[in-house]
Amino acid sequence: MTSSLSRRAVAEFVGTLLLVAAVVGSGIMAERLSGGNVALALLANTIATGAALVALVAAFIPISGAHLNPVVTVISAFDGGLPWAEVPAYVFSQTTGGVAGAMTAHLMFGVPFVAIGTHVRSGPAQSFSEFIATFGLICTIWGAVRFRASIVPFAVGAYITAAYWFTASTSFANPAVTIARALTNTFSGIRPIDVPAFVAAQSVGGMGALLLIRYWFPKSSRTPV
Amino acid sequence: MTSSLSRRAVAEFVGTLLLVAAVVGSGIMAERLSGGNVALALLANTIATGAALVALVAAFIPISGAHLNPVVTVISAFDGGLPWAEVPAYVFSQTTGGVAGAMTAHLMFGVPFVAIGTHVRSGPAQSFSEFIATFGLICTIWGAVRFRASIVPFAVGAYITAAYWFTASTSFANPAVTIARALTNTFSGIRPIDVPAFVAAQSVGGMGALLLIRYWFPKSSRTPV
Amino acid sequence: MTSSLSRRAVAEFVGTLLLVAAVVGSGIMAERLSGGNVALALLANTIATGAALVALVAAFIPISGAHLNPVVTVISAFDGGLPWAEVPAYVFSQTTGGVAGAMTAHLMFGVPFVAIGTHVRSGPAQSFSEFIATFGLICTIWGAVRFRASIVPFAVGAYITAAYWFTASTSFANPAVTIARALTNTFSGIRPIDVPAFVAAQSVGGMGALLLIRYWFPKSSRTPV
Amino acid sequence: MTSSLSRRAVAEFVGTLLLVAAVVGSGIMAERLSGGNVALALLANTIATGAALVALVAAFIPISGAHLNPVVTVISAFDGGLPWAEVPAYVFSQTTGGVAGAMTAHLMFGVPFVAIGTHVRSGPAQSFSEFIATFGLICTIWGAVRFRASIVPFAVGAYITAAYWFTASTSFANPAVTIARALTNTFSGIRPIDVPAFVAAQSVGGMGALLLIRYWFPKSSRTPV
Repeated sequence: MTSSLSRRAVAEFVGTLLLVAAVVGSGIMAERLSGGNVALALLANTIATGAALVALVAAFIPISGAHLNPVVTVISAFDGGLPWAEVPAYVFSQTTGGVAGAMTAHLMFGVPFVAIGTHVRSGPAQSFSEFIATFGLICTIWGAVRFRASIVPFAVGAYITAAYWFTASTSFANPAVTIARALTNTFSGIRPIDVPAFVAAQSVGGMGALLLIRYWFPKSSRTPV
Repeated sequence: MTSSLSRRAVAEFVGTLLLVAAVVGSGIMAERLSGGNVALALLANTIATGAALVALVAAFIPISGAHLNPVVTVISAFDGGLPWAEVPAYVFSQTTGGVAGAMTAHLMFGVPFVAIGTHVRSGPAQSFSEFIATFGLICTIWGAVRFRASIVPFAVGAYITAAYWFTASTSFANPAVTIARALTNTFSGIRPIDVPAFVAAQSVGGMGALLLIRYWFPKSSRTPV
Repeated sequence: MTSSLSRRAVAEFVGTLLLVAAVVGSGIMAERLSGGNVALALLANTIATGAALVALVAAFIPISGAHLNPVVTVISAFDGGLPWAEVPAYVFSQTTGGVAGAMTAHLMFGVPFVAIGTHVRSGPAQSFSEFIATFGLICTIWGAVRFRASIVPFAVGAYITAAYWFTASTSFANPAVTIARALTNTFSGIRPIDVPAFVAAQSVGGMGALLLIRYWFPKSSRTPV
Repeated sequence: MTSSLSRRAVAEFVGTLLLVAAVVGSGIMAERLSGGNVALALLANTIATGAALVALVAAFIPISGAHLNPVVTVISAFDGGLPWAEVPAYVFSQTTGGVAGAMTAHLMFGVPFVAIGTHVRSGPAQSFSEFIATFGLICTIWGAVRFRASIVPFAVGAYITAAYWFTASTSFANPAVTIARALTNTFSGIRPIDVPAFVAAQSVGGMGALLLIRYWFPKSSRTPV
């Protein structure tokens, strides 16, 4: 991470753009082709998202650390892996990149450039799902980087592949992606009104994981990648 | 594995919790979405479980060795990889973590917090399947760690992905997971009355693998990871 | 890359042959078996293509660098990774290998040896999709090789797995493969009249990625693998 | 490969047993659950087989080199990687292990212990498919081991995952597995009368790959793993 902050911010923008384009675009393709078979649509959406994460995390770690997720950025800052002064640039790049990614998917599939999500995702089971999803994601990243840094792209892709199915919310686990998905009215969309509870649950999940990480690794450096 | 036993026990608890949440949760999601197509439901359950293992084994190896399975713990103890005195803490953490994982999945999907499995899994073909499943799992772990320690998360995830389909029992291969799955009445459940035969077959399969491992690696250290 | 140019050219021919045989052959098999379920057919085609890329890129990197794609070759030349004088041999081998791969698939499946694609893939959404697909592919390769050279086969396979679903064009992202797919009238075919726009969009996408790569890595060597 | 020949032969037996049990067992499970949807059945069979190869090749490389395939063994001998005197023990172990694997699958699924395959797989398209399948497999193994020995299990698993779909024969590519599959009358079976042409095509494919390998790597050691 010797790149300048502007280079890293552009990387977070491009990486999150491609990630959300993958999530939203594969959701559109999956819904179009699956003829109402929701299990098959979600399976295709899952495989595309997990594979995109393997590729994008591997590609952007050498530039920006491949956070692509405000929770990862904030937990990194708490953990000493990123100066707090750089957090706003990361989060701004991730959020605007995510929104641009939804628009990119819309352009590729010829649907309205901007839309408002109407997919209802509310209630305590959804919030608890996002808590668990993000808690597990942060545990996975911080643990895997200590096993082998080279395994992190696979661990992240594999974790989200699993969490799309094992959480009731299909595991957004990422505030930037959540906001971007509020701007698409397709398979992977979410109502804007449901976003705050998702982001809150994701934040609490990340903080919960941080407490355990501090317990498990009391003295060692905790910077991921 | 320089962590204290309490840190490692918490890791085994959290890791097995997330593993069982993945198995049970993805089973619920798969059954809900697949509209009675059992092959599609099992495929989704398989991909979620295999991917979860890649992520969780990578994440928890640096803390506790990522056993997440009493058979792995006991065979490690026989093999000199873990003091016998630490086995009870590992097995207790795995079993209670597994049960907590089933409850976590139930909370996420809004089904009764605790239930009793009614899925019949009995008979000699089921027991023989669990013997083979666990025998192959232990051979895979102990062999793969000698090839490259970094491949172990992939080898475990890939093995269980295969074994979900090539055994008639869908390869529980883990006493803690088996007990936890007796407490869910969903896709991945099992009747409590069928648990003892599963655990017995898993134990015999693990011991059979240990005999071969001792034949193949007569003098070298046999500690996994 | 100490092999002679002729050895490397043969490797690019054989590698691209096997790649296109995998794309076209798995498309034929998928269409035959899926009984009109396009989502299932594309999922099988996707998994076969992504897996083929993991295997073939791993196999041919030690001989020719495993470009298997004229855009990768040309961007490598711009980037100093391949002498411009060797570009024609690479591109010729890739293109003829790709055509031979389509014919190989036709022979294996007993369909006419040569055919003309009739699958309509035109319009700005398709071109924009190919721009994004190739842009992301080049970013992925050039980023991943800086993370770990050993991850490149996985990053390429994973990226294309995702892009088959997240682009409206199913991500050809490769002029040699595009030309070869104009010579098959099966699941993965394309009308010859649609090829120029695809190749143009792929070229622009590759150049766009090169600009960002030069921004992100201003001084370091940029040769992939 | 410092193990004694007897240890290595037992490893080839156990490894091929588990491999064929995975191929045949997952075929039975897939056919039972898929309700006549052949694409879905083959997809499950594919994922199980590819994943089994990742696990088993990783596990058995440290003991016997994880050939699990007479073509790999014979090409290794031609290439100086295995003494010719040890070839019979390897091939015998692989073949008997494969047959035992089919029986193991039958026991697990409660079908007749031994049967004769009735699945017709004949004609030049099938033979050409087996030629291509084995040619590509040997190129993949011998190339991948020069890239990184650690990638070989993934390259083999990924190659067969692809080849199940891109060849008309679903890519047996292994004489021991072919013989074993003649002794099952389930999804993955083959008529005994079709076995000789398969084995011949596999042998020619392996030899063709060897010629190219000698051209590509003229002086270096060619021993895989």
